[in-house]
Amino acid sequence: MPDSIPADSVGLVTTQTLHFDTPLNLDCGRVLAEYDLVYETYGTLAENRDNAILICHALSGDQHAAGYHSMEDRKPGWWDTAIGPGKPIDTNHFYVVCLNNLGGCKGSSGPASTNPQTGKPWGPDFPIVTVHDWVNSQARLADALGVGQWAAVIGGSLGGMQVLQWAIDYPRRLRHAVVIAAAPNLTAQNIAFNEVVRQALRSDPDFYDGRYYEHGVVPAQGLKIARMLGHITYLSDDAMRKKFGRELREGKISFGFDVEFQVESYLRYQGESFVERFDANTYLLMTKALDYYDPAAEHGGDLSAALQGVEAQFLVVSFTSDWRFSPERSREIVKALLDGDKTVSYAEVEAHHGHDAFLIPIPHYFDIFHAYMERVAAECER
Amino acid sequence: MPDSIPADSVGLVTTQTLHFDTPLNLDCGRVLAEYDLVYETYGTLAENRDNAILICHALSGDQHAAGYHSMEDRKPGWWDTAIGPGKPIDTNHFYVVCLNNLGGCKGSSGPASTNPQTGKPWGPDFPIVTVHDWVNSQARLADALGVGQWAAVIGGSLGGMQVLQWAIDYPRRLRHAVVIAAAPNLTAQNIAFNEVVRQALRSDPDFYDGRYYEHGVVPAQGLKIARMLGHITYLSDDAMRKKFGRELREGKISFGFDVEFQVESYLRYQGESFVERFDANTYLLMTKALDYYDPAAEHGGDLSAALQGVEAQFLVVSFTSDWRFSPERSREIVKALLDGDKTVSYAEVEAHHGHDAFLIPIPHYFDIFHAYMERVAAECER
Repeated sequence: MPDSIPADSVGLVTTQTLHFDTPLNLDCGRVLAEYDLVYETYGTLAENRDNAILICHALSGDQHAAGYHSMEDRKPGWWDTAIGPGKPIDTNHFYVVCLNNLGGCKGSSGPASTNPQTGKPWGPDFPIVTVHDWVNSQARLADALGVGQWAAVIGGSLGGMQVLQWAIDYPRRLRHAVVIAAAPNLTAQNIAFNEVVRQALRSDPDFYDGRYYEHGVVPAQGLKIARMLGHITYLSDDAMRKKFGRELREGKISFGFDVEFQVESYLRYQGESFVERFDANTYLLMTKALDYYDPAAEHGGDLSAALQGVEAQFLVVSFTSDWRFSPERSREIVKALLDGDKTVSYAEVEAHHGHDAFLIPIPHYFDIFHAYMERVAAECER
Repeated sequence: MPDSIPADSVGLVTTQTLHFDTPLNLDCGRVLAEYDLVYETYGTLAENRDNAILICHALSGDQHAAGYHSMEDRKPGWWDTAIGPGKPIDTNHFYVVCLNNLGGCKGSSGPASTNPQTGKPWGPDFPIVTVHDWVNSQARLADALGVGQWAAVIGGSLGGMQVLQWAIDYPRRLRHAVVIAAAPNLTAQNIAFNEVVRQALRSDPDFYDGRYYEHGVVPAQGLKIARMLGHITYLSDDAMRKKFGRELREGKISFGFDVEFQVESYLRYQGESFVERFDANTYLLMTKALDYYDPAAEHGGDLSAALQGVEAQFLVVSFTSDWRFSPERSREIVKALLDGDKTVSYAEVEAHHGHDAFLIPIPHYFDIFHAYMERVAAECER
């Protein structure tokens, strides 16, 4: 519980729900006849509606990006460091929207929601959604909120991929694209890690082919393993060394299979707490959206061609120790934009935190981010 | 099946077994009253017994390092590229010994062996063994074979750790130490990956707390996940890109959870074939031996102090794209040796293959290895 809401917080916030009944055609060929999207907003939409910002979340993110749901909340939203009065995404200037993506598990239609055709949870029958599908659903949310054009669409990691896709699919509906710690597609190694995650989830005896809701269980062990593995790839080798080194929890080796090293303790805790707040089928869908994302594929692998129609100005940020989506991958995006004479700023931030850096208020990173967003704000006020 | 045995092969070989009944005191405080070690030998022991080479195996290795067990064998031993007439470990000069380590699953006493006290498989009651324990058991094998001093002890990865420990524990029993793609201890990230492996193995419903032998099953899914994850860390990101890229098995996305990308197909195959040839309890023991290895720990973290009594000459080899045991880790060994005025040659080999490089006959690597071993051979013939 926060003793009091900090002055630079957006304060108490509420998740809202919108029901959509215009069918959504998906990349997989299926159609979602109707669906819910849950979202939160922070700040005030200007009368001329030009100050709206969309935040796209990453794999395990959700609509609760900033502020507190109640005075009893122990933690604020997942990107509270970046969103609020005086912060890089300054709610004194901007109207900020963040939603839970389709397929999610925090209120938007997803595998745990009721399939209106059967009255049971969708489970594995929920369609596999893509980044492109998400962007389409987000555009409908924008319509519903009266936002014709975003001042900026912003996201890190898988969120950054959505930003890129926004710029491709709706070039005139965003003025700025902020792509942080992302990549234009996954490498074979990234896909390989996702496949191990999928094997762990799907082989859990409590997975029941994705119909575990009906059995009153969750594939806890699979989720735990998936999250532990995820965490290793979010942190750098260096960050783990700094954080844990070879430190033993009890000071000495026990020659057994209980926790011995601090890093084991940390990972088990991360894995176990994830089980309480995330859904295995959603995790599976997220890994597939990641694997499939590859806007250059339709253009014979030419990313510059994929970005040819882009009109947004870009800020691309990468972190030196990020080995999940390395700076090299961000530079591919930057190069493709420059090849097409697009406007792009690029920052490669020295940070030892690995991929997780995008969630951490590293001064150099936030200085750049803040300065860029001040420019975006200044344009709105013109 | 080899159509015929190649001329540079050691030919048909046979695994031999030695039973030891002098109790072995282990680091964990327990005692192995008796045990078997299985081993193979290639080449001929010189009359003065000065041409013996010990090969130490890595995590999933065994005593079958070279040659064929029968004309029906599809593949030779695991390091056949390096061992044989005219190869770096030239059997025209050397008498080569390779054993399956204690705790292994290829014939040496291990979890799948019968516990003489119960008449049942040891299972989880087999003691956790350390690199130090292995070296002690290997020294007894040397005694039994009449080898007072090895011309060289050679190993890659976890095998390299055994080499290092030989030089520490029995400084006068080896003239050369060849440490390939190794590290003086595991990083927090290395331990973290091992912990995910352990969780996958131990949470398999067919694991039965390690007593699966008695249930007539194996924790196949856990082993598969463990091996898939291992493979990702053995290959470099670059090697995976070169080998698989984003290639789809059927040429297009299927929007399902069957194999889609080639890399998934490869990993699943590697995982599944591993199940047939490896034991889960052995895998667990190997990860513990890796986690615990840290010769500097007894010297306040000072590796140079740990290596103070070393008398062997060293060849240390690392590979640029190895991110499991990076060149930086090999350089720690080299620096510690140099700080103690020891004799060490070091080669950092440009290779895109990742950690697996140590098993691959990369020309630059093998040239260095061969030249070094020719020097070792020349010393024997003096």
